[in-house]
Amino acid sequence: MRIGVLGTGTVGRTVGGKLAGLGHDVAIGTRDPAATIARTETGPMEQETFAAWHARNPDVRIVPYVEAAAGAELLVNATNGAGSMEALDAAGAENLEGKVLIDISNPLDFSQGMPPSLFVSNTDSLGEQIQRAFPGAKVVKTLNTVTASVMVDPSLVAGGEHTVFVSGDDAGAKEAVTALLRDGFGWRHVVDLGDIATSRGVEMYLPLWLRLFGALGTPFYNVRVVT
Amino acid sequence: MRIGVLGTGTVGRTVGGKLAGLGHDVAIGTRDPAATIARTETGPMEQETFAAWHARNPDVRIVPYVEAAAGAELLVNATNGAGSMEALDAAGAENLEGKVLIDISNPLDFSQGMPPSLFVSNTDSLGEQIQRAFPGAKVVKTLNTVTASVMVDPSLVAGGEHTVFVSGDDAGAKEAVTALLRDGFGWRHVVDLGDIATSRGVEMYLPLWLRLFGALGTPFYNVRVVT
Repeated sequence: MRIGVLGTGTVGRTVGGKLAGLGHDVAIGTRDPAATIARTETGPMEQETFAAWHARNPDVRIVPYVEAAAGAELLVNATNGAGSMEALDAAGAENLEGKVLIDISNPLDFSQGMPPSLFVSNTDSLGEQIQRAFPGAKVVKTLNTVTASVMVDPSLVAGGEHTVFVSGDDAGAKEAVTALLRDGFGWRHVVDLGDIATSRGVEMYLPLWLRLFGALGTPFYNVRVVT
Repeated sequence: MRIGVLGTGTVGRTVGGKLAGLGHDVAIGTRDPAATIARTETGPMEQETFAAWHARNPDVRIVPYVEAAAGAELLVNATNGAGSMEALDAAGAENLEGKVLIDISNPLDFSQGMPPSLFVSNTDSLGEQIQRAFPGAKVVKTLNTVTASVMVDPSLVAGGEHTVFVSGDDAGAKEAVTALLRDGFGWRHVVDLGDIATSRGVEMYLPLWLRLFGALGTPFYNVRVVT
């Protein structure tokens, strides 16, 4: 499948690289591909430069947002929350029309220091904002509740015995994403929370996630829903 | 130990009844004890009238807020979030001074319909508001992430293999509460999230909790933190 991944940070690289490894035709979209590839410094949460990552993942094309979106059958928003709307605008509403858009972003606001707060929460969510801004896209919020490596390899934590959530208005889109999570990434426990408004739940979980990261001393953890 | 429980709803009854069953001297505080006992209707989430519950738990005294607090060595805020400040004001700051105050409340706002939003979140929390309003109390936020029955009997879910959190500024108070959770209520997995500001994490988890309640069709569940 032709997949466009928006965002060149750790999440975009990890998800894009995994999808390419699964045999998909992956293009990572960014504002300025030449600048991204030329970057010689790592970002705050990054393990390596983009160029070093790209050398390890030569099959993934690096293209402008609009090109990643135009050619794709499936889209992944892996930009940071503060930049998601700008990236999706650059991708172009017409290139999102009728497509499944996996939204992994978190509306983190670092302007008040650490730990971050959320720039939208409680009575709205970034997932809903994206769905409203691009009504032709089939937005499915998922994977934003675990660290990047665990998104694509849940076996890294507790033998894979833990839970990921999906939120979205389109049942078929959620089924397709759930199939990718299960068969592609290896998730065994996928809970459908309901419509896109349930994005509020998984986005507002982030403050607890961040505090647990601090308490446990590692981002390699997750929650398992048990009854 | 003499324990004052503020609030006569499901949480107050459940926690108060359990503490009495453990041999503690429990007084439940309410605004108007005579009116509480005379109530002939059940609340929206209640299984039985207060009088019926009291008949099954005759050892628990029903007294005004101030009396429950004045005589107590340990306090539990089991009021609904919207009424917590009023109840604690009625209890009296001087009766909270130097005491551990277990805060189970959630800042749920039902004014916009279902599911509820939160009346404080993101950059503040009800746990912090209570600690700021009563600086002499040693506030420990806990148990607000599970349904009332599970609070006092974690074995009701997944054989007790799931997690509860504690948040608070006073290390000794968190140790005392953790001991009660473990030895009194049977919790095996208690995670100390940090200071009282980490109440934001467990309070902002409520929207996800409510959506999972809907998706699972039962409040008898919890999350287990796994690494």
